[in-house]
Amino acid sequence: MDIESLDTPAVVIDLDRVDANLAAAQRYADEHGLALRPHVKTHKLPWIAHRQVALGAVGITAQKIGEAAVMVAAGIEDVLLSYPLVGETKLEPLARLARATPRLAVALDNDVSLDLVGRAASEAERTIDVLIEFESGRLRTGVVAPDEALPLAQAIDAHAHLRLRGFMTYPLGAGAGDWVREARSVLERQGLEAPVFSGGGTPGMWHAHEMPGLTELRPGTYAYHDRATVAAGAGRLDDCALHVHVTVVSTPERGRAVIDAGSKTLTSDTVAASVGAGYGLVLEHPEAVITALSEEHGVLDVSACERPPRVGDRVRIVPNHVCPVSNLVDGVTVHRGGSLHGVWPVAARGTTR
Amino acid sequence: MDIESLDTPAVVIDLDRVDANLAAAQRYADEHGLALRPHVKTHKLPWIAHRQVALGAVGITAQKIGEAAVMVAAGIEDVLLSYPLVGETKLEPLARLARATPRLAVALDNDVSLDLVGRAASEAERTIDVLIEFESGRLRTGVVAPDEALPLAQAIDAHAHLRLRGFMTYPLGAGAGDWVREARSVLERQGLEAPVFSGGGTPGMWHAHEMPGLTELRPGTYAYHDRATVAAGAGRLDDCALHVHVTVVSTPERGRAVIDAGSKTLTSDTVAASVGAGYGLVLEHPEAVITALSEEHGVLDVSACERPPRVGDRVRIVPNHVCPVSNLVDGVTVHRGGSLHGVWPVAARGTTR
Repeated sequence: MDIESLDTPAVVIDLDRVDANLAAAQRYADEHGLALRPHVKTHKLPWIAHRQVALGAVGITAQKIGEAAVMVAAGIEDVLLSYPLVGETKLEPLARLARATPRLAVALDNDVSLDLVGRAASEAERTIDVLIEFESGRLRTGVVAPDEALPLAQAIDAHAHLRLRGFMTYPLGAGAGDWVREARSVLERQGLEAPVFSGGGTPGMWHAHEMPGLTELRPGTYAYHDRATVAAGAGRLDDCALHVHVTVVSTPERGRAVIDAGSKTLTSDTVAASVGAGYGLVLEHPEAVITALSEEHGVLDVSACERPPRVGDRVRIVPNHVCPVSNLVDGVTVHRGGSLHGVWPVAARGTTR
Repeated sequence: MDIESLDTPAVVIDLDRVDANLAAAQRYADEHGLALRPHVKTHKLPWIAHRQVALGAVGITAQKIGEAAVMVAAGIEDVLLSYPLVGETKLEPLARLARATPRLAVALDNDVSLDLVGRAASEAERTIDVLIEFESGRLRTGVVAPDEALPLAQAIDAHAHLRLRGFMTYPLGAGAGDWVREARSVLERQGLEAPVFSGGGTPGMWHAHEMPGLTELRPGTYAYHDRATVAAGAGRLDDCALHVHVTVVSTPERGRAVIDAGSKTLTSDTVAASVGAGYGLVLEHPEAVITALSEEHGVLDVSACERPPRVGDRVRIVPNHVCPVSNLVDGVTVHRGGSLHGVWPVAARGTTR
């Protein structure tokens, strides 16, 4: 069986490209003295997480307890949970994770989360490292003013099972360096140290060393790349390691073709108009635009194609945003140079808690 | 344990509301002499499929072989596969499905699919019913001109293991009745009969009886309803049977709150501006707008809320589009009147093939 005889839609990973992407990022981090802590949300595969660590990553980043727990169960020993944990339902799972993980850190931006993390650490009788999340341009989680870090830092410092480690942000806005400098000076006046400054994702990763004071980089998408990270200049189209193999199932009229991948495979994630039109890039027909998705239908405008695809043709799609594509499938088909290595369970898919 | 102590995000189904929604649709279909063939893509749960059949549905609709196979394995005996099957990789799975399913029909719009379906039927030594899919306003799959139905109908009629049953469309545009009348007259001149006219989804379901000649109705979303079907007038907000229970994890500044459900839970599906802003409706704070989603973050503009939510608050979301939400979770928490019945596996999730 070869790739061309896989049932479609199929999410297919080129391990040679993954290896090259991982190595390039680690080389960059090493050159610039940055700790690399890749986010596993992109691949959700223990194999890639171990590869990242073997190449030199200090550990991994995970977004939710469930995602982290899968990686710890697969042998990963150093995890940053980069999402504020809130709610009594998180107490027991976090305590269990703290017991199971040799080095666990969490990020948070409020005292409700801090109280929970402190109780989980006490219950587990383990030390949990804490990073204070701050706002740097995304306008989602993260304290806004450097002053706000102080009461959190003091409470962390006062807790027997918590250890203040530093600051975390996503993505890594231009003012992030100044923010950390200010927050550190506020903390230092109270005798508190916060050595870690963790930031960034894939889009700006090759410029991370230009950020004053940054100590740690947390890209995720770079393992696979996608239409958005290529448009951001973080990778080339040939670095894209995840393709969705699809079949043309209908060409009802001139200029229109339908593929067997819709929002259940490609997701409804869009990209900025400057990146490109539609719900993904069709490698064999770059002039085609995926104009609309139903759950299982992808509708293509192929009117600009000199040789439009025909019913039964197989084509490959580079998704707009690759991370949620991984999350949609139970398994990905992996290969090297077209030689199949198997269908690997996406072990950490579906872990929203 | 009660609903308020579920870990979040949680996808929660109110079975009383499901029952009421199913009964109302069946009553409507019975009153108007329409066959009801619900689409299971919304719920993906054998329990609901069986309930639909027990109430009087003639069978179910499924989009893909995998989805159908799950329902057949759960005891459903009459299935319409409403998606054109193309590609050699579908041959064996379709033949197996044909053997396992007492009454199987497929819809198709091209001769490549017809050839495949014919070979699968022959290999299975079973009769597969065929509906010709036609275009009625969605501009995805479906033959466009009534004349195009003739060669397909003739080939179906000539095949020992295929049986021409009629026409299928989605949704059910205003011209669909005329289209079927014209296509039938073309076919009848060649002595071919096509008695079934299957169409429609949830949004226009209560008007289906106004469509001349319609024999079968295929709504899916009506089992749960969502923000889009409520806006379409197909249900009331109180009919919405699926809520996503979430926790507020951060309120970094005045006017902004963040919930622990992003695109991995709610999907990035949008609704028309006329339906409402944002990525879902927050029941406890209808003035809030879910303005942005990351995979695990939902960012709320709560500046219009008199009492904005606080960190730790639990709120419930009615999704924009409920079907892909079912697909994202391995299990849904089901209850009646707040009394938990369990976490039911979403048996047919992830079945894109």
